Amino acid sequence: MIPSPYLVYLGAARDPLSVKTSRGVAEWRRELCVGERRLPGCEVTLGLENLTYEEAVMRGAKTLILGEANAGGILTQTSVREAVAALEAGLHVAAGLHERLRDNPLIRETAQRMGLSVFDVRDPPPNLPIGTGVPRPGHRLLTVGTDCSVGKMYTSLALERELRRRGIRADFRATGQTGILIAGSGVPIDAVVADFIAGAAEWLTPARHDGGWDIIEGQGSLFHPAYAGVSLGLLHGSQPDALVLCHEPSRTHMRNLPGRSLPDLKECLEANLAAARLTSPNVVAVGVSLNTSRLERQAALRLCRETEDALGLPCTDPVAMGVGRIVDRLLECFPDSRSASSAGR
Amino acid sequence: MIPSPYLVYLGAARDPLSVKTSRGVAEWRRELCVGERRLPGCEVTLGLENLTYEEAVMRGAKTLILGEANAGGILTQTSVREAVAALEAGLHVAAGLHERLRDNPLIRETAQRMGLSVFDVRDPPPNLPIGTGVPRPGHRLLTVGTDCSVGKMYTSLALERELRRRGIRADFRATGQTGILIAGSGVPIDAVVADFIAGAAEWLTPARHDGGWDIIEGQGSLFHPAYAGVSLGLLHGSQPDALVLCHEPSRTHMRNLPGRSLPDLKECLEANLAAARLTSPNVVAVGVSLNTSRLERQAALRLCRETEDALGLPCTDPVAMGVGRIVDRLLECFPDSRSASSAGR
Repeated sequence: MIPSPYLVYLGAARDPLSVKTSRGVAEWRRELCVGERRLPGCEVTLGLENLTYEEAVMRGAKTLILGEANAGGILTQTSVREAVAALEAGLHVAAGLHERLRDNPLIRETAQRMGLSVFDVRDPPPNLPIGTGVPRPGHRLLTVGTDCSVGKMYTSLALERELRRRGIRADFRATGQTGILIAGSGVPIDAVVADFIAGAAEWLTPARHDGGWDIIEGQGSLFHPAYAGVSLGLLHGSQPDALVLCHEPSRTHMRNLPGRSLPDLKECLEANLAAARLTSPNVVAVGVSLNTSRLERQAALRLCRETEDALGLPCTDPVAMGVGRIVDRLLECFPDSRSASSAGR
Repeated sequence: MIPSPYLVYLGAARDPLSVKTSRGVAEWRRELCVGERRLPGCEVTLGLENLTYEEAVMRGAKTLILGEANAGGILTQTSVREAVAALEAGLHVAAGLHERLRDNPLIRETAQRMGLSVFDVRDPPPNLPIGTGVPRPGHRLLTVGTDCSVGKMYTSLALERELRRRGIRADFRATGQTGILIAGSGVPIDAVVADFIAGAAEWLTPARHDGGWDIIEGQGSLFHPAYAGVSLGLLHGSQPDALVLCHEPSRTHMRNLPGRSLPDLKECLEANLAAARLTSPNVVAVGVSLNTSRLERQAALRLCRETEDALGLPCTDPVAMGVGRIVDRLLECFPDSRSASSAGR
């Protein structure tokens, strides 16, 4: 677990996309964020107070979230300098870049000298087990997708929030670096050695006896020719009771693969249900999540209604319309999940 | 590529299974083996001449194949001593153990001093690409299975041998450590980072223009809850024209998973064909390979006939009956594969 609360790093960002991990943390774990760290020239804000590292420590911050995203996932010279300054002020540092914090000698030595930790969330945990497929207690929901980057993390977090709002225990289980920084724990499933994909998912979502839900962040797509193996291992290891299908309707081809069209929603859902039955014979679909941000409001509503009719499932855009109707369906299908008497962890 | 010819190591083995990798190399690449290395107490032989390291070098051997298999995949003290002796005599050393040769200081330093190489075939190659699914020329056949360890490597090698015997170019493409030591190259697909499974298979079997076949060693099973992700990534990356389904009929449950039954052959084959169509829309099945070693001859023949009738495909035990009828079907389906004018590499 990464110690909270956090100071989230924006550096000298001019483009909101370049700090999408910091934004995700500030959006989904605002209660854990004491402030943001902006450098001269920064044109982005998360609406948090701009603090120095010393001020952040005074307000109780434990960890700097170095939530940058750049091509290649590298640590820039500026990031190294700022990570060192944060460590010297008394903060742990967490990042999800390909280039590891611990592989930078200056960062590593400063952390050692200060008795602090660096968290490279792209590292899989050691000693992951091999999957078994043995049935385990607990309710689990997995988001699956027609493609990569169609809103699986966002949908999962929205489901967690809505379930908790209704007094039902629910915990987001992160499988990607942004999700892990939001949740404070998780498994970067795309970085696990191939033999351990399903085992990693089993490890992430162990037996649960409190009537609550593990809401598991899906990855990739069974229909993506690069990543389907990851998606299938995650599907088997998750042993899901329920699936939510995520889709971006304005996408013209599979991500990074011009000319390869997206699967039909019904075909995609049925393939996921069929594969999931290997470890979860009674799995059901409970909803469809569409990212309609590129559509007009009326067109988005019409598309949701049409999708709903075609698949017989509640269909919604989590950002524009919330996920209430998907949660309604989930609770109809699993009335025992109401039994938890208190919300949150 | 691991330099050949080889000296194959048997050590002081008393159990043939403990040297199954050396046996595989001697069985399938006998023309590359100048001798075997037996230590006092050894009760196993591969029928090769027993040579010292110096004698092997005199006969032209280039590499010692340290083809042991033990629980945990560790390097024993004896193996370390023998690897060092082989290096000092002038041989490279290759092994497929989990414990790496290069991580042993004595072996590493001896190799450096002698200017020789150690080959840890469980290491994936660096800089593997992400898969693309873009169609590529060439004929590819993949063996798939109902379970792990049902004869996919053996069947693949038998198909390569039979195709070459008929004057058709064919190359076994190894995906596991024993296969890699037999082939002298390959990718240990189970050791690749999850995001790169399909890309590794694409890298292993690039575009081919000579009318010949890549015969790809399958791994795991779409129906194994631990390894299906590996199997699916390999299936997508292989982009196979043809599948051969492998099965062990006397197995009562999935490997290491008591209580979990094997899939029905027809269901398993159809699931593999459906998944393969994502990157190879015209894929066909050309045969079924059964390991009938635990059945009487008559029962084995009867089972093959029954399977043949049920699936409409040639069915054979490669060891007891050869793979001629599967190759007949393959060449009926792909008459252009006859066009190669010479056999072998």
